[in-house]
Amino acid sequence: MKLATVRTEDGFRVVRAEDGGYVDIGPGDVGELLRRDDWQSVAAAADGPVFQVEPDRLAPVVPNPGKIICVGLNYRTHITEMGRELPQYPTLFAKYAEALIGPNDTLTLPPESDAVDWEAELTVVVGRRVRRADRETAAAAIAGYTILNDITARDWQFRTKEWLQGKTWEATTPVGPCLATPDELAPDAEISCTVDDEVMQKSTIGDLVFDAADLVSYISTMITLNPGDLIATGTTGGVGHARKPPRYLRNGQTVVTRIEGIGELVTPVRGGTS
Amino acid sequence: MKLATVRTEDGFRVVRAEDGGYVDIGPGDVGELLRRDDWQSVAAAADGPVFQVEPDRLAPVVPNPGKIICVGLNYRTHITEMGRELPQYPTLFAKYAEALIGPNDTLTLPPESDAVDWEAELTVVVGRRVRRADRETAAAAIAGYTILNDITARDWQFRTKEWLQGKTWEATTPVGPCLATPDELAPDAEISCTVDDEVMQKSTIGDLVFDAADLVSYISTMITLNPGDLIATGTTGGVGHARKPPRYLRNGQTVVTRIEGIGELVTPVRGGTS
Repeated sequence: MKLATVRTEDGFRVVRAEDGGYVDIGPGDVGELLRRDDWQSVAAAADGPVFQVEPDRLAPVVPNPGKIICVGLNYRTHITEMGRELPQYPTLFAKYAEALIGPNDTLTLPPESDAVDWEAELTVVVGRRVRRADRETAAAAIAGYTILNDITARDWQFRTKEWLQGKTWEATTPVGPCLATPDELAPDAEISCTVDDEVMQKSTIGDLVFDAADLVSYISTMITLNPGDLIATGTTGGVGHARKPPRYLRNGQTVVTRIEGIGELVTPVRGGTS
Repeated sequence: MKLATVRTEDGFRVVRAEDGGYVDIGPGDVGELLRRDDWQSVAAAADGPVFQVEPDRLAPVVPNPGKIICVGLNYRTHITEMGRELPQYPTLFAKYAEALIGPNDTLTLPPESDAVDWEAELTVVVGRRVRRADRETAAAAIAGYTILNDITARDWQFRTKEWLQGKTWEATTPVGPCLATPDELAPDAEISCTVDDEVMQKSTIGDLVFDAADLVSYISTMITLNPGDLIATGTTGGVGHARKPPRYLRNGQTVVTRIEGIGELVTPVRGGTS
């Protein structure tokens, strides 16, 4: 099952994706729906007419998550090819809700940065309140998965040792297009990021060092995870900053971030120094 | 003027502190009040009877801020005494709302950490929506100040280079006791932290490298600041982790975090290995 949040003139509505369109579930967004214990049956039961949605009406799948927790280096192949040891603990940092944009929204490059980069990430959507969850409880608390491109202003990220200021620029992080329930996602689903059709990142989510259940369990040790919270699980090799010479996003480009079984983010890039 | 958020059986109420007690302003919390353009006149106009409030009924002054942004090393004397250069940019990291507790609430030491430390911090409460604010606009967007002790699990903080996981443990960060409007705070107000009456930290807020207006302006470059957002401005020397030998909080201690002109946090410490 795939659920999305749609912008309407009267606020958000939750919809279920079907072949050829969407079925309305009701008012609110996917984050609000997930606060209901019976969200799965409510979402599955909707049986209205199938309708079309213009791409730019898709909102961030959870427009206002209580927490967005991001994970650093977490792809095995990428870590070992860099000659590093596999980490004992996940590296965690934050992003604020104001950073989010919809799955087909335009990314406007901030004039204050000349080094905006891409990071395709499988993202966990929490579906149940959990604290100090073991792996089994953690797995059961996962409502599903979405895609997030952790767009990063590298110059700001590396101004200090803490990355936050490069990671949470207003309206720069596309997320969506849907919440795909766990059954939609193969253990080795392909994840990729292209810029103007050039493949920049390509891997499989099977290469994660800390998988979704590991991360929910680990994070819930320290803090309660609530329905709608997002955990972006980290990115693989191929980011622009690590290329020689480095490459960053430019006016007129289009970034496509894809995960097999979930869908894709299509992000036109505008502004900046072209 | 000093405003506080009080817990009642029917939810939060905003109150104004007076000599000898509090005056009721109305339902909601200080964060909600700040979303009103006329919050200052509403707060000043309340003229009901003065009543008492039990200390444990004081809530975090903003119980659910949209953003809590924390600043790293930001006290001039402490930086220079460590032989470091003054930073060009503030170091920023995040804390989530679930970390907050009230100004007199008990801090329960998590069993997963044996290295919980104190960090007294002057904290800005944002009163107006701002983006890309110059210093003057930034200063005008400050509703006032509160006190926050950025309680930190040092062992978790240093598991990776990013500090988040040591900084946002559930229900460990006292904040309050009130929002004091800027006129209540002298430019060289004393800030201190004691543990069982032993002075651990003592400085003046005049020693900040990046002051409140600097920080609001800088952060608003990247992201919109909204009413109720908190900016914890960093701590001075004297934390337990830097002592030789290191000292951490233990069951039965009481932490008092004080800023002249605002008030104090009184935090009983329970749990842990005693």
